[in-house]
Amino acid sequence: MTPELDARERDARAADPLSDVLSVADALRRHPTVRLGDDVDPGWCEALNLWVSTHGLERVTGRDATLVITGDPAHIGGAFWVHSPNAGVERLASTLSESALLTRTTGTMPARIAEYVLTWVLAERWHVPRYLAHTATATWDRSEPPLPPRRQEAVVIGTGAMGSAIARTLGLLGYRVVGLSRTGRPDGAFDVVLPLDEAFGRTDAMPSATTLDASRADVLVLALPHTPQTDGLVTPGLLRAFDGVHLVNIGRGSAVQTATLVGALDAGRVRHATLDVTEQEPLPASSPLWRRPDVTVTPHVSGLTLAADVVEALDAALTEIRAGVRPSSAVGRHRGY
Amino acid sequence: MTPELDARERDARAADPLSDVLSVADALRRHPTVRLGDDVDPGWCEALNLWVSTHGLERVTGRDATLVITGDPAHIGGAFWVHSPNAGVERLASTLSESALLTRTTGTMPARIAEYVLTWVLAERWHVPRYLAHTATATWDRSEPPLPPRRQEAVVIGTGAMGSAIARTLGLLGYRVVGLSRTGRPDGAFDVVLPLDEAFGRTDAMPSATTLDASRADVLVLALPHTPQTDGLVTPGLLRAFDGVHLVNIGRGSAVQTATLVGALDAGRVRHATLDVTEQEPLPASSPLWRRPDVTVTPHVSGLTLAADVVEALDAALTEIRAGVRPSSAVGRHRGY
Repeated sequence: MTPELDARERDARAADPLSDVLSVADALRRHPTVRLGDDVDPGWCEALNLWVSTHGLERVTGRDATLVITGDPAHIGGAFWVHSPNAGVERLASTLSESALLTRTTGTMPARIAEYVLTWVLAERWHVPRYLAHTATATWDRSEPPLPPRRQEAVVIGTGAMGSAIARTLGLLGYRVVGLSRTGRPDGAFDVVLPLDEAFGRTDAMPSATTLDASRADVLVLALPHTPQTDGLVTPGLLRAFDGVHLVNIGRGSAVQTATLVGALDAGRVRHATLDVTEQEPLPASSPLWRRPDVTVTPHVSGLTLAADVVEALDAALTEIRAGVRPSSAVGRHRGY
Repeated sequence: MTPELDARERDARAADPLSDVLSVADALRRHPTVRLGDDVDPGWCEALNLWVSTHGLERVTGRDATLVITGDPAHIGGAFWVHSPNAGVERLASTLSESALLTRTTGTMPARIAEYVLTWVLAERWHVPRYLAHTATATWDRSEPPLPPRRQEAVVIGTGAMGSAIARTLGLLGYRVVGLSRTGRPDGAFDVVLPLDEAFGRTDAMPSATTLDASRADVLVLALPHTPQTDGLVTPGLLRAFDGVHLVNIGRGSAVQTATLVGALDAGRVRHATLDVTEQEPLPASSPLWRRPDVTVTPHVSGLTLAADVVEALDAALTEIRAGVRPSSAVGRHRGY
């Protein structure tokens, strides 16, 4: 039976909550085939080929396979199981049939993204750009030394794996960390989690347990996936609640429009923006975000996936699938993350 | 009785291990006087005056006092107790009579110095200088992205309060931290502490439990006070044991000669040097350490003391002295720290 024929059966069984996992397990038994999308980093091939052969699978090229490892919807074919080498899966999630299984690589990425946030928060706090410039110009200047921040609150929008890792790391710097999420569900990594819809409340309302005094925040981290709900979620009104915050975006550039960000910088609502993601990537040379001393752009490098991360995620997912269990790395398609 | 007359009695009692503490307690009862050295930061006067009046002491100017708060030997006068606003007390220790009590401010400094080390280790690891330059020139360049370090070992020379705080912080980054100290006495903040004299061993000897494979170190932190023993302790031979290490000096510039450092940089033994302290301070414009991309100089700002730190240290010391206990902040004069 070809994967194409299996697909009909698969769609018919989609009502069963585990049907996708069970049909992947079944397909893997009958066609233990794996294809790597053309988008997969050539540096990972050796590690992935080793994983394939170790688990009794067969690497195929140029035809349908049960498992396709790719981040690009164009390479899916008739796959039962698509594994994304990346954490962001919005393009795959919107293309893939509901009955196919989609898993993703998180790996050490939350820890690495948290380290990226820590790095740039500290770089700003300790005047790293200033002292680098002083070293280059032989300047010994002890005026305006780095001091501990007066404001000890940090806000993280997005309380998933990335947001939680960031919250724990900012906690080590002494920040009280407020998380903002869709549901406001408590999470041990945060001092408090508030529902985003209510956190900024009406401006004339008294502060309450579910509203945030954003003006006290020293750091604002955006850790949002790209979904229709997060698109432009960071509005001019939201940023107006802040007062000289250091904004760090490590989620998706779509969360905040460039014009919104530039306005908030010019108005002093944001004192510095560190952006690993931008509305357009690569960021065009004409973008107003370049060349500003109050903006730092990094080229989407905070959450680079390592080959070892992909292998580890595949290992875990394969074990779970063969045991008839939904992989913990499976993407909830209705949410898109 | 004037402090000058008391001084003779004090010297006579110096053989008793607590005699200095007891004569300070006695002198404070009879002459509860405090003088601030001219070197004390004017911004601290308000906080210090409040402390003086809160504890029933009297602030005097222009004459001898029982307690002198100063970092400058020229201001000691006939003090029974000298409190240094700084952690480094080499000049005071070498000038002050053996029978007078010398205390120092450590305060939040170890935590701040550890944060400084963390900042610059991360700045190097995450290519902060490169991305700042790219932002200034509108350059989106994803080549050579920041990756986790291959070597997971850090070496800290000096295992006092600063060294321990640094070790705990580097541990959070995943480093195995080896401490080197005079005695090699174990310390929970380090994975292992080795005696400095034996750590580098003979180059032809087999590695053993008390020798260090320095070539595996990613980071080398110098956290040494200035004493005759630490002067030039970091020799060309010591640095030759390393292989492309990031050296961070937050102790005293005297630990490593500029020529030694430049030689080790040129030979690749040190891949980057981050120096908060230098042989000469301010670092002269003619120093070869300026303008090198592999050197970052900061103007001795890693361990700035805050007024609150000084007040807290004085508070603790006064309570201990009045209870007839040696203050935990007292300086062991034979060691100089």
